[in-house]
Amino acid sequence: MKYLITGAHGFVGSYLMRAIAQREPAATIVTVDREGPGARLDLLDLDAFSALVARERPNYLVHLASLSSVGASWHSPVASFMNNTNIFLNVLEAVRRESPATRVLSVGSSEEYGVVERSELPLRETNPLRPVSPYAVARVAQEHLGNVYVRGFGLDIVATRSFNHVGPGQSDLFVISALGKQFAELAKGKRTKLEIGTTSVVRDFLDVRDVVRAYCDLLARGERGEVYNVCSGRGVSLTEVIAMFEAISGVHPEVVTDRARVRPVENELVVGSNDKIAQALGWHPQHSLEDSLRAVYDYWSARC
Amino acid sequence: MKYLITGAHGFVGSYLMRAIAQREPAATIVTVDREGPGARLDLLDLDAFSALVARERPNYLVHLASLSSVGASWHSPVASFMNNTNIFLNVLEAVRRESPATRVLSVGSSEEYGVVERSELPLRETNPLRPVSPYAVARVAQEHLGNVYVRGFGLDIVATRSFNHVGPGQSDLFVISALGKQFAELAKGKRTKLEIGTTSVVRDFLDVRDVVRAYCDLLARGERGEVYNVCSGRGVSLTEVIAMFEAISGVHPEVVTDRARVRPVENELVVGSNDKIAQALGWHPQHSLEDSLRAVYDYWSARC
Repeated sequence: MKYLITGAHGFVGSYLMRAIAQREPAATIVTVDREGPGARLDLLDLDAFSALVARERPNYLVHLASLSSVGASWHSPVASFMNNTNIFLNVLEAVRRESPATRVLSVGSSEEYGVVERSELPLRETNPLRPVSPYAVARVAQEHLGNVYVRGFGLDIVATRSFNHVGPGQSDLFVISALGKQFAELAKGKRTKLEIGTTSVVRDFLDVRDVVRAYCDLLARGERGEVYNVCSGRGVSLTEVIAMFEAISGVHPEVVTDRARVRPVENELVVGSNDKIAQALGWHPQHSLEDSLRAVYDYWSARC
Repeated sequence: MKYLITGAHGFVGSYLMRAIAQREPAATIVTVDREGPGARLDLLDLDAFSALVARERPNYLVHLASLSSVGASWHSPVASFMNNTNIFLNVLEAVRRESPATRVLSVGSSEEYGVVERSELPLRETNPLRPVSPYAVARVAQEHLGNVYVRGFGLDIVATRSFNHVGPGQSDLFVISALGKQFAELAKGKRTKLEIGTTSVVRDFLDVRDVVRAYCDLLARGERGEVYNVCSGRGVSLTEVIAMFEAISGVHPEVVTDRARVRPVENELVVGSNDKIAQALGWHPQHSLEDSLRAVYDYWSARC
């Protein structure tokens, strides 16, 4: 099989490429990134990407390229929107024009659910979407566009709503990575306080290795036109994450609020149900959050 | 008061400018269009539009610029998306940066509701949005972005979901105008058959003069962050519209299906409730569909 992966050399892409190589050693992987090895192009350039798709005609296209930071989307809403929704629309147009049989994995986000009531938890795929950040709006639009291309143009798209990822190599724009880095610095005496935004928020964290295994399963056996939560099914507050990092590092720092990390509108509770993907594909998480956090801590310890 | 109107020299804009001039003769109206009189610029150029907003700092900004044809959005999804969602996002960014006190009227579409069940009619603002065309997705994203800019950035935005417009001067890309034009041609012997897409669809048609009166009322008294249907509240099938044009023109043509006008996915039933705007603002439609159709017929009769 031939895979085309956008944003392949980002955090998730590097794990996905490893997972594909392990499952299917004969697979061909074509990568597209703005920088780095492989094809280099800006996905906002529809003609350039269409030419690549026409040349490669992959069996699978996994679209990972994204400005995926919610926080950054509040600072640069236009860039966030274009580098989520517009690049995805270009991906779909290129596939529609040049390789309509290609199966596309559309990676969405738990942020699409937006502000939810406690009674709605755990979030199922049928829950209404009430996006509250520029990033979340962009992801909802992406999912809607995918539906239009399935129903109106006959493309073969499987969509996800992926919850928070955890794993070594993630940018410290994301909270778990930022905390792991700070704990590594604290343990080495390179900082004295832990800086964080809102600690009360509850999130559903999933090890990146479980994430990419779900993506491989969805490409192979997901149903066309369907959307699947990719999540652990377990809600954990940032206060709990901090306590787990304290246990791992042996450090008990003073916690101070970094106003720059507090967002204009925040989803307090985000916990998903993974019943749909579990029942459809037999996928279940394999890595505990404790193991994931330890891996993140070790990663940063080796780098600070 | 100073008004800034994008797409001011389009179909709706010309009626809106007349309505404002009538209600408020001392009003200043600044217009922005891609072509024509007034300021000329492409709303995809954020810097140029921001400079204009900084210079004018209007009390009201009415965003009418749009590629508003659903049919065209199936042929050019990227252009449709950019010239709806991306230009609206630029409008919001310009206002946020340069004139955050400006009240913005965000004009959306009944297409946002998508495919609906008969039991959901008439459509209320609380109905779920299930967009099924590229244009509809773009309008939903626009509305979501408006919500984010209200809640996250404190802007003053009032939104509409405007149903089908009727009136002289509308492009014949839109069904009523296309039918009126064909009946005028039929009456003069300039064509022999009526060509149409799907005649079974039911729509809620509102005279453009009632539309712009609603917009003026919403600017003056609509509630910040709220969305309002702008509609007649009455469902009419295209078969009925054809019968009305037959009565007006005295012509009873053979009807043939034009495959090019049939869309990949079609919303069969679109009928709104105008209870919310009626109760909040005392707005009610003043023009009957019969009068509107006659005006459209007369317009085309004078031009063919």
